[in-house]
Amino acid sequence: MKNESVIANRRSASPESRSDSHGPVERRAFLARGIKVAGALAAGGVASTAGAQARAAESLGAQMPAWMTTEGAAMREYGQPSKFEEPVKRAVAQLYGKLAPGAGASFTPLQSLKGTITPNGLHFERHHNGVPDIDPARHKLLIHGLVKKPLAFDVATLMRYPMVSRTCFIECSANSARNTLPKALDVPCGALHGLVSCSEWTGLPLAVLLNEAGVDAGAKWLLAEGADSATMSRSIPLSKALDDTLIALYQNGERLRPEQGYPMRLLLPGWEGNMNVKWLHRIKLTDGPTHTRDETSRYTDLMRDGKARQFTFELGVKSVITQPSGGMAMQGPGLYELSGLAWSGAGRVTKVEVSADSGATWQDAMLQAPVLSKSLTRFRMPWNWNGTQAMLQSRATDEKGNVQESRAAWSALYSPANRYHNTMIQTWAVNADGSIKNVYA
Amino acid sequence: MKNESVIANRRSASPESRSDSHGPVERRAFLARGIKVAGALAAGGVASTAGAQARAAESLGAQMPAWMTTEGAAMREYGQPSKFEEPVKRAVAQLYGKLAPGAGASFTPLQSLKGTITPNGLHFERHHNGVPDIDPARHKLLIHGLVKKPLAFDVATLMRYPMVSRTCFIECSANSARNTLPKALDVPCGALHGLVSCSEWTGLPLAVLLNEAGVDAGAKWLLAEGADSATMSRSIPLSKALDDTLIALYQNGERLRPEQGYPMRLLLPGWEGNMNVKWLHRIKLTDGPTHTRDETSRYTDLMRDGKARQFTFELGVKSVITQPSGGMAMQGPGLYELSGLAWSGAGRVTKVEVSADSGATWQDAMLQAPVLSKSLTRFRMPWNWNGTQAMLQSRATDEKGNVQESRAAWSALYSPANRYHNTMIQTWAVNADGSIKNVYA
Repeated sequence: MKNESVIANRRSASPESRSDSHGPVERRAFLARGIKVAGALAAGGVASTAGAQARAAESLGAQMPAWMTTEGAAMREYGQPSKFEEPVKRAVAQLYGKLAPGAGASFTPLQSLKGTITPNGLHFERHHNGVPDIDPARHKLLIHGLVKKPLAFDVATLMRYPMVSRTCFIECSANSARNTLPKALDVPCGALHGLVSCSEWTGLPLAVLLNEAGVDAGAKWLLAEGADSATMSRSIPLSKALDDTLIALYQNGERLRPEQGYPMRLLLPGWEGNMNVKWLHRIKLTDGPTHTRDETSRYTDLMRDGKARQFTFELGVKSVITQPSGGMAMQGPGLYELSGLAWSGAGRVTKVEVSADSGATWQDAMLQAPVLSKSLTRFRMPWNWNGTQAMLQSRATDEKGNVQESRAAWSALYSPANRYHNTMIQTWAVNADGSIKNVYA
Repeated sequence: MKNESVIANRRSASPESRSDSHGPVERRAFLARGIKVAGALAAGGVASTAGAQARAAESLGAQMPAWMTTEGAAMREYGQPSKFEEPVKRAVAQLYGKLAPGAGASFTPLQSLKGTITPNGLHFERHHNGVPDIDPARHKLLIHGLVKKPLAFDVATLMRYPMVSRTCFIECSANSARNTLPKALDVPCGALHGLVSCSEWTGLPLAVLLNEAGVDAGAKWLLAEGADSATMSRSIPLSKALDDTLIALYQNGERLRPEQGYPMRLLLPGWEGNMNVKWLHRIKLTDGPTHTRDETSRYTDLMRDGKARQFTFELGVKSVITQPSGGMAMQGPGLYELSGLAWSGAGRVTKVEVSADSGATWQDAMLQAPVLSKSLTRFRMPWNWNGTQAMLQSRATDEKGNVQESRAAWSALYSPANRYHNTMIQTWAVNADGSIKNVYA
């Protein structure tokens, strides 16, 4: 079943759910009125007398599907999704086509997911020259540069260290870049904003290894390099490395997937995705940033005033409504649950507001507990659609008081050519014909 | 890389980590001493002068592996684990062999996992006649019996309801049954205790649908039935159905896997696994329990006094050390991190104690935050192994004050023939030769 079409597949709501106004409504009202909608949708053919009940049950038996009359499949050593969910997949974008098939990204299909955890098979990817096929028995992590004692660690040694777990998002700093193009693309939510995913990561604090190597007084930065054929590398301030940075070995319980850096990656909660260096094989302590190709040719932010900002590490506060969203279709006026994701590199999300009128009025959404720092947070809001055009937006606030910016405010700050740190508010136009489009508003 | 052998693969610890005593030590001490161990393990061949550092880096380059000199693999629409992790898989047990290939279980490989989330591909399975291949477009959920208005819901309709997420474990009530056999089996931890897994589930409260149907005053129970060819069914008190029971549609973000009940299952946090009816297609409100085949032929607990207990729904407080555990091998005396999982059907785990001397002395382990109600909780404890035999145990306490029972206490309560609700403390014997065995103690 293609989740993108869930809303499109719904039958028309009954007249009793119609209303002349739209905009957020109270949850209690949603439940009370939603019940009527669903009852009207669902009760057809099932009468309410005891005899009719029995006949309904028999009728269910008479229509017994093949899967109830034949043996089911045996247990498997490693499970896979239902074949009916095959359309739920990452959207792959190759930057240079066949010239470099591993240079590009794949986007998490946010519009098809619920909850906050991203399943490992659907975590977004961004590679500069593909996924290396690393034999963990031959992989080493070198720590060198401005240290008292350079060290090399094999995987088995790192596995012996005390580990911690933390749930957090990773977001590519070029996430939502497609919404900086001159014309709004009519693609699903995930293909716009799906370079963000969230997992429970387990690994060891980088601080432990740095302490073991003995950091020289002059060391202020480090260079982290991957063992891919692009030797992707970034400069990271020592303060972050000594704060909450992990060498992640496990993702959602199991060992990292190859496309997530197997056998090990850096995890810098809340900081630009590509600093979370995958296939990590080298950390060099330095007295300043190294200015590698990857942080000069990319990952600098072009500003409206012609300057470029470098080393803008922390990701901004952001949110997006995932259901309903672009490419879905409303099926008649009535009650819907709006649902989306919010996050901030600065800490916890404290508030998400939703507007159905392009930001003229706002109402607080519910946040799913537990709300974790630097983690995806699910928000929800009941909404009565009256069948006329609506402009849906969400706006997140974090614990530091940062508030997600409007498209106008963000655009006043950055050059039209800038593709990074796009945190602007997303607008979905719900049109009178039920279609839902990405629009710039 | 086979995680079971991680400890076995480790090189011997250096003499400076040796100690004449074993037993838990303070975390700070572990870090301080662990650093020495790892340094000694890892530093070989990497000298500490600047010149030597440069040579070490060059040497790393000279040995550049093939994956750094060839393009990596392209992005994929749905990811899979590394081929080197192929040994990390569910252990499949067919109860009747080829006669009924879908009757049995597969066990989560707890010994290979870290963190608390179970990846969807490794969530345990327990089926009575296999996994049905259900077309969600043809599946319906019927609510009937003692209700004012029987209702039938298709999947698309249920998808429109407001949803909630909750992270919780599911445990088969026959988990750890192998440890009730007369002789201790020498199998990995997961093959003993792996009928427990933990996910972030998303779905709708069953109470909402029951409210919509209108529950008659005489209704006290309900029958929940699956659409598998075993029509697996259980009786559930109405109070639980109106409390925290969900109709789960999503698991760790994506739609349920087929072996987890696609397109929908019941979720009864903290209660016996098989009451979380998979492939849910019918809920009948009743004035008492239905006494179906599945709750009379199985899932009753034989007691020491000859009686049988029925409807013992809530799962007890429990824990198990997953690393190190049976089948692994210690590699020399020194410092190790003990790590394991604890859980309780009654709520939050508040304490896990660890013993290295078969319960003579105990010390509190660290609990990984956030500790969630009715969810797997990861505990850790540094441990210095002195090379002599040790008997490792863990003992969990929950917020209701329930304390995990010893083997002796549990065995005094239940018949030797009972296979359900085995919450007894697990003992791993760490022998002087480094081997680790499941023992009854």
